[in-house]
Amino acid sequence: MQAKDKGELFQQTFSFWGKLNENEKQIMIDNSFNKIYKSGENIFNGDVNCIGVLIVRSGQIRTFMLSEEGREVTLFRLMQGELCILSASCVLKNITFNVNIDVVEDSEIIVIRSKEFSRLMEENIYIENFFSKVIADRFSKTMWVMEQVLFMKFDKRLALFLINESEELNSNIISITHEQIAKYTSSAREVVSRMLKYFEKENIIKMSRGKIKIVDKKKLAEYAD
Amino acid sequence: MQAKDKGELFQQTFSFWGKLNENEKQIMIDNSFNKIYKSGENIFNGDVNCIGVLIVRSGQIRTFMLSEEGREVTLFRLMQGELCILSASCVLKNITFNVNIDVVEDSEIIVIRSKEFSRLMEENIYIENFFSKVIADRFSKTMWVMEQVLFMKFDKRLALFLINESEELNSNIISITHEQIAKYTSSAREVVSRMLKYFEKENIIKMSRGKIKIVDKKKLAEYAD
Repeated sequence: MQAKDKGELFQQTFSFWGKLNENEKQIMIDNSFNKIYKSGENIFNGDVNCIGVLIVRSGQIRTFMLSEEGREVTLFRLMQGELCILSASCVLKNITFNVNIDVVEDSEIIVIRSKEFSRLMEENIYIENFFSKVIADRFSKTMWVMEQVLFMKFDKRLALFLINESEELNSNIISITHEQIAKYTSSAREVVSRMLKYFEKENIIKMSRGKIKIVDKKKLAEYAD
Repeated sequence: MQAKDKGELFQQTFSFWGKLNENEKQIMIDNSFNKIYKSGENIFNGDVNCIGVLIVRSGQIRTFMLSEEGREVTLFRLMQGELCILSASCVLKNITFNVNIDVVEDSEIIVIRSKEFSRLMEENIYIENFFSKVIADRFSKTMWVMEQVLFMKFDKRLALFLINESEELNSNIISITHEQIAKYTSSAREVVSRMLKYFEKENIIKMSRGKIKIVDKKKLAEYAD
């Protein structure tokens, strides 16, 4: 990726860009690079050196918690234009937990190296402030997930998930496996399959290989409510 | 509380105090007040107008999530000198969730009104930045709890809780009811009682009315590890 293109991307992505001097801008450009990740690849986990700030240029990545026994709770997914700061947690004094990040769809990611990013952030309050707000936003997203996982019944959670996916895709047909739904809703595959079968029996959805079609959106919405 | 005392408290509590002009300092002093809360009282919940930023002058308060069915998950407790910003969530654009806050021990709380606080924060990036870091810290605390609740076995959680309490009190005797432990560890009272009984049978603790004595700290630490 050319320096000029990086500059344009940073200007679009970072509201503090206009507050940087030419030297600071150059440091960010010089210390960033693009990387192609394949679907399923792990980008970041607690054991790996913290990679830096990520900007998703294309594709989709996922942040999740992982238990010692391998249970996963998806916190949020990030799409084109969104950025990830928890992947630079080593340079964030107030962030003392680790998440995992893996790739949902083949992705092009712009990485800004932790060390240089951290130095800039210490010197420029606008950068620090921008990323602090990103963290607050991720906190909100995480709390929403936690409320669901801890308190909400699974029929409601699954209905909400299907509605959100359908709206995001702008289609009644969702291409997704039960395994994937289990991951995104922090449930088990068997539980997902059971509940989907129930929805099908109730004529709310229709399943085919790797696809779910919503046939009664109104009834699904009643479950979600 | 006198204006002069407030000024001193704010100087101790807020690292940005030196970055405020006299007018801004005066606004904070004029728009804050102290309030006495009794143990068990609710300070804040989603339905109540958001009260503002809180500083705990004495006592102890608790932030928790509450399900529709009344299940509670304690996120963190705040003691003397600590401050709470989630009680001003209505003026924080990136905080879209609500927590509950109640009083653990009789407390004196300094409240800074949301509206005026919000205006100052918009105008002064040092204030915004300070509180953003507080939010990041609370995010970390919350994630720690979530890991425990979602992934950790209860014997380990209870052992960790007893050790932390004992260290905080600097005593082997903890005055606490099973009900309270259930709240703080986000569990059910029956589960707490059962596990405490097991610890007693193993000669790790000794129970008496409203008190738990740790008799074998080493063995307890093994459970916590």
